[in-house]
Amino acid sequence: MKRIGIADTTFARYDMAKSAVDELQSNATGFKVLRYTVPGIKDLPVACKKLFEEQDCDIVMALGMPGPKPVDKQCAHEASTGLIQTQLMCTKHIIEVFVYEDEARDGKELAWLADRRAREHSLNVIDLLFHPENLARKAGKGLREGFEDAGPVR
Amino acid sequence: MKRIGIADTTFARYDMAKSAVDELQSNATGFKVLRYTVPGIKDLPVACKKLFEEQDCDIVMALGMPGPKPVDKQCAHEASTGLIQTQLMCTKHIIEVFVYEDEARDGKELAWLADRRAREHSLNVIDLLFHPENLARKAGKGLREGFEDAGPVR
Amino acid sequence: MKRIGIADTTFARYDMAKSAVDELQSNATGFKVLRYTVPGIKDLPVACKKLFEEQDCDIVMALGMPGPKPVDKQCAHEASTGLIQTQLMCTKHIIEVFVYEDEARDGKELAWLADRRAREHSLNVIDLLFHPENLARKAGKGLREGFEDAGPVR
Amino acid sequence: MKRIGIADTTFARYDMAKSAVDELQSNATGFKVLRYTVPGIKDLPVACKKLFEEQDCDIVMALGMPGPKPVDKQCAHEASTGLIQTQLMCTKHIIEVFVYEDEARDGKELAWLADRRAREHSLNVIDLLFHPENLARKAGKGLREGFEDAGPVR
Amino acid sequence: MKRIGIADTTFARYDMAKSAVDELQSNATGFKVLRYTVPGIKDLPVACKKLFEEQDCDIVMALGMPGPKPVDKQCAHEASTGLIQTQLMCTKHIIEVFVYEDEARDGKELAWLADRRAREHSLNVIDLLFHPENLARKAGKGLREGFEDAGPVR
Repeated sequence: MKRIGIADTTFARYDMAKSAVDELQSNATGFKVLRYTVPGIKDLPVACKKLFEEQDCDIVMALGMPGPKPVDKQCAHEASTGLIQTQLMCTKHIIEVFVYEDEARDGKELAWLADRRAREHSLNVIDLLFHPENLARKAGKGLREGFEDAGPVR
Repeated sequence: MKRIGIADTTFARYDMAKSAVDELQSNATGFKVLRYTVPGIKDLPVACKKLFEEQDCDIVMALGMPGPKPVDKQCAHEASTGLIQTQLMCTKHIIEVFVYEDEARDGKELAWLADRRAREHSLNVIDLLFHPENLARKAGKGLREGFEDAGPVR
Repeated sequence: MKRIGIADTTFARYDMAKSAVDELQSNATGFKVLRYTVPGIKDLPVACKKLFEEQDCDIVMALGMPGPKPVDKQCAHEASTGLIQTQLMCTKHIIEVFVYEDEARDGKELAWLADRRAREHSLNVIDLLFHPENLARKAGKGLREGFEDAGPVR
Repeated sequence: MKRIGIADTTFARYDMAKSAVDELQSNATGFKVLRYTVPGIKDLPVACKKLFEEQDCDIVMALGMPGPKPVDKQCAHEASTGLIQTQLMCTKHIIEVFVYEDEARDGKELAWLADRRAREHSLNVIDLLFHPENLARKAGKGLREGFEDAGPVR
Repeated sequence: MKRIGIADTTFARYDMAKSAVDELQSNATGFKVLRYTVPGIKDLPVACKKLFEEQDCDIVMALGMPGPKPVDKQCAHEASTGLIQTQLMCTKHIIEVFVYEDEARDGKELAWLADRRAREHSLNVIDLLFHPENLARKAGKGLREGFEDAGPVR
């Protein structure tokens, strides 16, 4: 039984964890989900470390939605740096699912994007955990999570 | 008996620790507060580490008020990076409560914002320590500490 | 038998791993290649750590293609920082082969550049692993991987 | 007998260590000063680590004067990041005393500022080492080292 | 017998290691030089760590010449951050000798600058290793490596 951690925030304006859990459960079995909600994205690195060390997770999804201001992007940068550091300390993957508020034209598109990116990254989590050979087959294909794929060059 | 550390600075222009302690004591019991004041925000990471290791704290609030100049924002970035690193070394939460001087229109609003953000984050500390399920219920709700909540999209 | 890890992404728009493996096999023997594909460049640091620790690699190539937006460059910076940290934790080389989409005028040049940079860095990997004295002979020569060499000053 | 380390540079254009030592000795007893001079500010983090580990210091002052160019500010950022990391590795305070050349209008003011900031931070060092309760009394008072205090809001 | 490591790159457009070795040998005895050449500056941190751990060096010079593009400056920042981290992991000095291509007006000046900075930092290495008291005497003197000294203020 694999253990998938989901760390998310009260700051985010969309419940991406719900989309992630739904997608995970629609596409795989043999795992258990452990949720952990923190206030903001800068609280995510230690939340993920706790999910690895105190909840024995095999992989974690870190869901966040940085605001549109320069200070928000700074926070996202600090959070991402901490998430990479956490992965290196634990030698386990954290799939970062960040949706920037200014990636979308309006609230409707933002909700669509958050749902879709969370779902597409859930499939990455399943592949990393159960079918790594699937990712190898898609290497260099210009895949994107959320908006449409860029595709391979030419 | 839980131990809540509060690290703050002489640089800040408002005594956020007073607000934090008042809010903590008005909303919970079963904890003890340990104060530690340092000169500036870049001294906060090691102050928090000392609160964890030498004072045996379970969680720490790091209170700071970066100035409005570019070098102040650089300091805030360095402090935040160090606070995340400290959390990962100790596997415990530090709730960063930073109020930027240029977030407010004037001194009066700055004082209001500092008080309010410190209080709202104190409630997060109580939830993380005693009622983590409360945060899970508020995941993705677009909560903000200080100014009003952004709310969920659409 | 040396073990060369190749970590790459599904985000990249060109299969640089294919070029790298072809070049390695055309120029050296006595090694085995271990592939590991992850979604994006920020997943590369822990992928490389896993290749070192779980697959016992002696050196790793980290192949990535950051997009043209500011957030993509931020991701590349975070990934590079993590790759350096990984090397220091493992005391082994990771040869970073990043091709920025906006380095090339069009898709055709981007494909050419990705292929060529992957191949030229494969030769660096062979030298680091089997013939470090070759690199010492080329110290200060203004070599470039991909576009033409800058050459020594004057 | 406490041990106070002072790390400084040949790059700085003012001998801040002299000011610091004078101020320390005018205001406290029961300590010994250990000097260590390095070329530039990026050499300070490991100098401080050596003062902690090889000279058994209880606290260190890191004195530096970054130049006015963008690359100098980048160096200051890297040095500060390293100084925070050092503190976290040793769980001891480093009081960073950096004076930026472009903070002052001319050489005369720069000398005044360097002397004054070094002296005021020396008092912080004494408080951290011998009278931490003094700092707690000044929390949130808007204190500044060098130029005049900002004071509390309103 | 002290061991001085010299890590350099094939990317640099001038053989600074030659200048450094010549200057070291003209000014001191009782040491052995160990060369290690890598492709680019981001490969320097782990090269230095290997020189410390696998070649038992007492100090290392890291020689590099970042290009003039923004991405090159980003690389230099990442490399510098890694070099500081390496020093903290090993508690030994790495003297970073970076010459930016755009510091010089033309190739001739660039070659002059690279040679001179490498030589002047070689003297710093000798002082750190054999005569630390020489550096203490020059504290706060506004020394520069390469171009002329700024000198003390006023």
